[in-house]
Order: sequence, then structure tokens, then C-alpha cells
Amino acid sequence: MTIRTLIWHEHRHEKKNKLVASLYPEGMHGALKKAFAGDKDFVVDHALLDDDAEHGLSEKRLAETDVLIWWGHAAHGDVKDEIVERVAKRVYEGMGLIVLHSGHYSKIFKRLMGTPCSLKWREAGEKELVWIINPNHPIAEGLPECIKIEHEEMYGEPFSIPEPLETVMISHFEGGEVFRSGVTYRRGAGNVFYFRPGHEAYPTYYNTDVLRVIKNATRWAYNPAKPWTGIHPAPNVPHDKAPYPLEVKGPRLHEDGQEGFR
Amino acid sequence: MTIRTLIWHEHRHEKKNKLVASLYPEGMHGALKKAFAGDKDFVVDHALLDDDAEHGLSEKRLAETDVLIWWGHAAHGDVKDEIVERVAKRVYEGMGLIVLHSGHYSKIFKRLMGTPCSLKWREAGEKELVWIINPNHPIAEGLPECIKIEHEEMYGEPFSIPEPLETVMISHFEGGEVFRSGVTYRRGAGNVFYFRPGHEAYPTYYNTDVLRVIKNATRWAYNPAKPWTGIHPAPNVPHDKAPYPLEVKGPRLHEDGQEGFR
Amino acid sequence: MTIRTLIWHEHRHEKKNKLVASLYPEGMHGALKKAFAGDKDFVVDHALLDDDAEHGLSEKRLAETDVLIWWGHAAHGDVKDEIVERVAKRVYEGMGLIVLHSGHYSKIFKRLMGTPCSLKWREAGEKELVWIINPNHPIAEGLPECIKIEHEEMYGEPFSIPEPLETVMISHFEGGEVFRSGVTYRRGAGNVFYFRPGHEAYPTYYNTDVLRVIKNATRWAYNPAKPWTGIHPAPNVPHDKAPYPLEVKGPRLHEDGQEGFR
Amino acid sequence: MTIRTLIWHEHRHEKKNKLVASLYPEGMHGALKKAFAGDKDFVVDHALLDDDAEHGLSEKRLAETDVLIWWGHAAHGDVKDEIVERVAKRVYEGMGLIVLHSGHYSKIFKRLMGTPCSLKWREAGEKELVWIINPNHPIAEGLPECIKIEHEEMYGEPFSIPEPLETVMISHFEGGEVFRSGVTYRRGAGNVFYFRPGHEAYPTYYNTDVLRVIKNATRWAYNPAKPWTGIHPAPNVPHDKAPYPLEVKGPRLHEDGQEGFR
Repeated sequence: MTIRTLIWHEHRHEKKNKLVASLYPEGMHGALKKAFAGDKDFVVDHALLDDDAEHGLSEKRLAETDVLIWWGHAAHGDVKDEIVERVAKRVYEGMGLIVLHSGHYSKIFKRLMGTPCSLKWREAGEKELVWIINPNHPIAEGLPECIKIEHEEMYGEPFSIPEPLETVMISHFEGGEVFRSGVTYRRGAGNVFYFRPGHEAYPTYYNTDVLRVIKNATRWAYNPAKPWTGIHPAPNVPHDKAPYPLEVKGPRLHEDGQEGFR
Repeated sequence: MTIRTLIWHEHRHEKKNKLVASLYPEGMHGALKKAFAGDKDFVVDHALLDDDAEHGLSEKRLAETDVLIWWGHAAHGDVKDEIVERVAKRVYEGMGLIVLHSGHYSKIFKRLMGTPCSLKWREAGEKELVWIINPNHPIAEGLPECIKIEHEEMYGEPFSIPEPLETVMISHFEGGEVFRSGVTYRRGAGNVFYFRPGHEAYPTYYNTDVLRVIKNATRWAYNPAKPWTGIHPAPNVPHDKAPYPLEVKGPRLHEDGQEGFR
Repeated sequence: MTIRTLIWHEHRHEKKNKLVASLYPEGMHGALKKAFAGDKDFVVDHALLDDDAEHGLSEKRLAETDVLIWWGHAAHGDVKDEIVERVAKRVYEGMGLIVLHSGHYSKIFKRLMGTPCSLKWREAGEKELVWIINPNHPIAEGLPECIKIEHEEMYGEPFSIPEPLETVMISHFEGGEVFRSGVTYRRGAGNVFYFRPGHEAYPTYYNTDVLRVIKNATRWAYNPAKPWTGIHPAPNVPHDKAPYPLEVKGPRLHEDGQEGFR
Repeated sequence: MTIRTLIWHEHRHEKKNKLVASLYPEGMHGALKKAFAGDKDFVVDHALLDDDAEHGLSEKRLAETDVLIWWGHAAHGDVKDEIVERVAKRVYEGMGLIVLHSGHYSKIFKRLMGTPCSLKWREAGEKELVWIINPNHPIAEGLPECIKIEHEEMYGEPFSIPEPLETVMISHFEGGEVFRSGVTYRRGAGNVFYFRPGHEAYPTYYNTDVLRVIKNATRWAYNPAKPWTGIHPAPNVPHDKAPYPLEVKGPRLHEDGQEGFR
């Protein structure tokens, strides 16, 4: 088993802001990559928004990706809608997706959730305690009961997402708010995990517990099944191919083998 | 309490197909309206795809709607994207939505589910048994253990929807397939119910049990709370307005009161 | 509609502890009753552990109860198992159940959850902020975004409950912990709500927001459907009474109309 | 990775009934064992109700079991309550549990679900089609879209279980009923799967697709995490050990380090 992992990164803050550039000299994707360092279960690469006309997310590349990790913020609007659809399609077929921090407002996350995914926020460098509430979940493997982050941006509830399949983590912020920081979903055959920490103004992606969550989640999201390519069409089942073959009764508007209206 | 109910109907089959026209001389919306006849808890109107440039779904009209019922099929693609977004926004704020039959492939249902919503199908006039699996759910009020429909189109699993909040009904088809025919979701403050029966070639919307489900679901979907208008923005909470007021620590990229990136 | 509400209270602390006696001179049940004062939708009574051999929960009384509210702590072990089974049976049939605070460890809550329902705790009079994360849920009606309680006992995650149907509230504690403070379940036809606040050493049940949650939850938990009395047996369906009548094929171990093994 | 799998079997029908004895000359456990034949990922053993005073489920044996498979029917009542509690405890700590067919009424399944787990049934040798509705779920690996079983006992909805975490399979019966035949839950750290087929009067456990489900489910249920032994107590967190150390405010009823009331 080798999990082909692709870290997609907006990579704009590092170019425009000295602070972010100095915090992440190899880019945030460079720091994220270290989550997998030395682990032979993963082959890791990255793709950047400005890589090419397809944001580094060609059909071919997505077809060769098992789990996609997504960090975006200031440039959500620059991601092309057709690429978002392409990513969604691969998720339905079985590609895992890990959405990080400000990615809550990415087109792909909102597309898959079907909700606004809004929240409250505050950038005050306050302390965050990420409590593991589902301690034997695969995403929690090897973690303490609580991940301590000295300086983080606050995200506060209500987080307008659908009721999660599982809530794995809840954050406590120094200023008084709480947030569901680790939540799972399935969309088609694709496992989706949202993980909150990772504001670009702080060194969060050097925290070994945070990196461990990301690696654990990537392993959890990996679906070894053959892609569910049949998820897209609405196939007609002819009456004489039914499990209990039928005589057609009453009127019909459709022809045998016709595609459903979309 | 009066539930302002709006039946949205594509209303194209009745104009093009003699069979559908003769089955539903007042339109399928006319038949659906009878679900509420004589019940003072509901005020019911309809809107049609070709009513006007906004498909009868102006901002004002949606603002005055508590629960929207949706039937569409051949013309899903003719519904404008901006109207779909407008309906989604009202659902998030608290408007209920009942999606019927072929509406599984409507833009609004796919938009809210975040999945393909595909399925298998067969038009053979076969018998459908809709089993109530959650018998004391409000949507099941007054129903028998099983709704019998002599002639229906078959819809078969896998139905590529997210795991429902509640599965209320499962159908058994004569030809051998099964289908989750009644499923609930919440999206923001809006209650969403998908209900399977209702192929335009059969007199399904004259079945009193089917109409009862639709009325029950409308009552269930009604959310009397004030609209959740705050669901759309991502408001900043200034550090001195936090529940535990904070001194700002470390660097900042954002200004006080700034909007989140979208 | 009148919701027949029964507040079940252990009522031992008030008798043994001067502090609790002075905080709740009419008993905690007396304070809880005021949640419903002046609201004609509710008829409210109470039952106490030591009322009689049945803890005030006779078959007749439960049959006449729509929603049961439960507060217990030091005397969980004194509640008779047969009474617990009786209450569970009524929940399955459709009686609502609101479990308060230390009731997380009551026999009835553990019985219905099927899990240990354990947690961490600390009695330090610290501040609790109960955040509403599902703001347009019926249980949140009329509440602020956050209920502030000056002095409360801390309950911390992991709270070993099944994944909730809906998570409505999450608490933030001054000392750093978080807790899922408002969670919903359905068991059979019965709606179940767990609500965290209410340590006997503090005046929590005089907080009007806390009382409002309890009233809202009682209204939400009320199931007007006829009791699901058929939930208990496993009825045999004879082959000639099947929706599609059958000839019996192959061998049989059971007789027509026999009860299932239990 | 080796998954220590234990098949627990009632093993009474084979002794009392010639038909069952001739169908399963090595016992149903013998047939079930073949699901794992030749697969080095599993080490498989069995335990029988009448093995010894502990039904073959000593503390030691359970401690050495990763996944327990359970088949019981006529003798549910002969399983000792203390053994049921012991099994539940191990499930909470992380042991997987696969409950088969008539095990829906076993003490352990009802204990973990918290509901009656009742259903309708008919023994007429009718055809069952088990549809996979979540086709890329690990439990569905390598299966066709529908498992066909020529002769089975019918189980019909409503199946009074809690809303599942995931519904993986739904059955269609010749006589007209439907049933949620494959459902998942988590209880503490333990993954639980209920799988419907397997009436003792038919050769169901020789069906290779049925055996494949059981093997897949065993792999899925395996939780490699260290046992969650801390799930049982309710530990006190002293005020000076809180993440944000506190001064105790207001009155207290408990001592530092005291156990919670149970």
C-alpha cells in the first residue's frame, strides 16, 4: 500500500507577506510535507494555484491521487469552477480530501457540504486547545487528549456545516469560543475530513501533533476500493433485465436504455 | 400558525404529452395542492418554471414562503443558476424544502446535498411498496405500515446521497430493487425532505397516502424560528469583544472588523 | 395540545446538605417547575425517588406522561432496575425524555445510550459558556448565541456517548475543557435530549436561559403520535398474508404465528 | 497485522434438529470459519455457549480478541448477564463486534443499541436480494451490486434500532418486505456491524458473497488502537491541574480526586 498524497496550496501569502514568507520559507506546503517524512506508506507531492491553467490539478494528476490535502484562503475566488467540479468528481469516485483551516470557505468544501460553511473568527494570537473527543478514532492515533497550540486564529461556532458523520475534535479558545475542529463526512466513495488549525500568521504547521493529525487523516481518508465510476450516470435497467423480469404495464414516456434527464 | 406553502412545478410534460395532460388536467401542481385541501394550517400557492424570468421565485416570494415543494424532470437544465442560489440561501435561513421524485436530479437538490444524487431507474408500471421504517416520525402520521402504489417508475440503489439524518421510508419494487424513498436532512436552518413517488406517467398524486406524506412533510419542514440571516457572513469578533477579553499576541494579517476571504 | 410533563427528581441532596437545601428550598424540582410557569401548553407535576416503592413512576403515571425530565446524582444505584425498564419501554413507545446534568450516569440514560456515558469533571465554581451551535433548532428558540453561567461544575470530553443525532450546544469552561452540552437522540418513538448544566451546589436552575432550554426541549421531545406499542414483539407474518403471497419453499423450524425467540 | 477473530456460536440447533445438523455438520461456526480460510491477516477460533461457565468468554480470552462474531437464537436467555457486561466492556475498549441474523435479539446487541431491536419475520424459504447501497464501503469490497440468496427467512421493517452511523445494505424479499441488512455503529472505541442473513434452516453460510461480507466486516471492525481503558471511570480533574489553573470559587460538595457517583 502506497498512498499517493497531493498537497494543494494557494501559495500566495508567502509571496506577498514577509511574515508568512519568513515563517514558511519553503511554503506552507513544504511544512505540511514534513508530516509524512520518512513514512514509506506515503508518496507525497504538491500542486500550487498558479502552477498552470489547471492549478496543477489536471485530470491525469487527480486520477493518480489517492488523497488530496487543501489549503486556500485569500484566493478562493481564483480557483476555476471547472477544476472544482473535477475535484468533486474524483472525491465521489473515491479520492480522499483533507480540508485545512481557511479552506472551510474554499469552493470545493462548500460544494461538497452544500452549506455556507461560515463561522466567526478573531486574529489575536490566542491559545487554542484542540480536544480529542473520539480518542480511538484512526485520526486520533498517537495523540494526547488535547493538542495545545500557543497562538492561533480563533474560529467560533456556529459553523454552518451539515451534521457531521463523526465529530472527532472540538477546540477551546482563550477568548471564550468553541469550534468543531475535526469532522468527518463521506461524499460518494470519498472520505472528507475538515481540520481547523493552520493560520498562515503562526507556526502551526511545525507543531508535531498537528502534523500527526494530518498524516492520520490522510491514512484514514484513503479508500483502496476501485473508483466508483458508475456514480455519475443514472442508468436505465430494462424490464427484461430486472432481478424479477417484468412485463411492462401501463404507459411509458421513456425508451429502453435512455439516459435520465439531468 | 399558518404555513405558507409554495408548490414549484416544471409544468412542461402536461403541455407536450397527451397522456400526462389527461392524467393531470389541472397540472401536477393542481393535484399536489389537494394534499392541503380544507386544512387551515396551510396557505398554498404554486409557481411554474415558465411563469416569468425568475420562474415565479422572486426574492419577495421566497421571503414569504415557509415551505417550498419541488417537482422537476425534463427541464432541470432550464432553471437558472442564480435562482437556485437564491432558493438555497432561503433554505439556509430556514425555509423548508420538499423534493419530489425526479427532483433528485434538480439543481437545487444536488446543490444542497453536495453529491451526484444518481440512481437506477426503470419505467415499467411495476408495483411499489413504500415501507415506513420510522413509524412514529411526524412525516409518518396517519399512514399504514406500507403505502401501496400499483404502477410506478422504479428507482434503485445506490442512491448517491449523503448519509441521511433520518431514513423514514424504504421502497420495495416488483422487479427486485429497493430505494430509500423518504430521507431527511438539515441544511443551515432549513429542513429538507426527499420523497420518491410521483412519476408523471402514473396517477400517483391522486393516492391519498402519498398526499398525506407530502402534507405531513410540509408540516415537519416548517421552521417557525426567525430566519437565520446571519448564516452567510463570517463575522469578525474583535479581541476586546471576546467573552474573555484578550490582549492581541503575536502578528496579525487582518484588520479589526474585516470580512473573511470568500 | 397540552404536554403532560413529569419532573423526576432524586431529592436527596436537599435533605442531607444545608447548602443545597438553602439554594433550593422547594427542591430542585420546585425550581425546574418554574420553567413552565404560566405556559398553558404544559401541565407539570413531579415525582421523587422516595415517593413510594415505584419512585413515583407507576405504569399508570408513565402512561399519562408525555415528557419525563430526569435529575439524579448520588442515588443512581437506588433506582430499581424494573422501574428503569419501565421507563425505557415508555420512551420506545413515544414518551420524550430530558436528562439533566449528573443524569448522564443514571441507569436510564446509560440504558438508552448503550455506552458508559462517562466524562471528566471538576467542582471549582468556574464559569461556563454554553454555545448554541445549531441556532434555529427548536431547542434553541429565544436563546442568545451563548448562555453564560457564572459558577458551574466542569464536565469535560471525551463524553462516551454514541454519535448524537444532532449536537445543539457545546460548552466552554474557564479551566480549559469543552463538552457537548446539548445532544439529541431518538430511541424507538421517543425523543431524548441530554442537557448538561445543573450542579446542585450552584443556583443554575434559576438562570432563565437554562430554564428556557428545558422548556424548549420538553416541547421538542413531545411526540403527539399514538404510542408505538408494537415496538416490543417480533411478530410473525404468515406466508399467505405477505404483500406478495408465497408458497413455502424448503424446510421450516418455526410454526405459523409463533413468537420470535428472545 | 493479524486480526484475532473469535466466532461465538450458540450451537444448540445443530444438536437438537436433524435438518440443521445435516446442513452444518461442523456447526455453523465451522462454516463461518471458512470465510477466513487461507487469509493470513486473520487468526480465527470459536467459542460456544456451553463450552464452560463463562460461555468460552473469559476475561483473558476477550482481552486477546480483536473482533468477536456473534450468532445466537433460541438460547439468548441462557447467556449470563455478567458475560454480556464483560463483552460490552471490551467493545467499549475497542473490540469489534459482528452480530449475525437472529443475534438482533441477543442480549449483547440490545445492550449496545439501547433499543428493542425488534422486527417482523417469516420462515418461507423465499428469495432475498441484499442490495449494496454504499458500494465503496470497506464492507462491500469485492461484492456484486446485489447478493442473491435463494432461500432465506424474511426480516421486515420496522427494525427498531437507533439511526445507524452508516446503512451499507438493504434487503428485498420475495414476499414484499424490505430490511436494513447491513448497518454500522460505534460504541466507545468499538466498531459494531449487524448483518442480517443466516437462518439456521438454510445453507446461507456456504454462500461465498455472504462469507465475504463477514470477512470484510471483520477487517473493518478491527481497531488497532490501544484499548480505551479510560472509558469506564469519570475522573476528577483537580482545579490546579486544569489547562488554565483555577482558584476554586463558591461552595463544593466533592473532595479533590473523588470518584463520580454511579
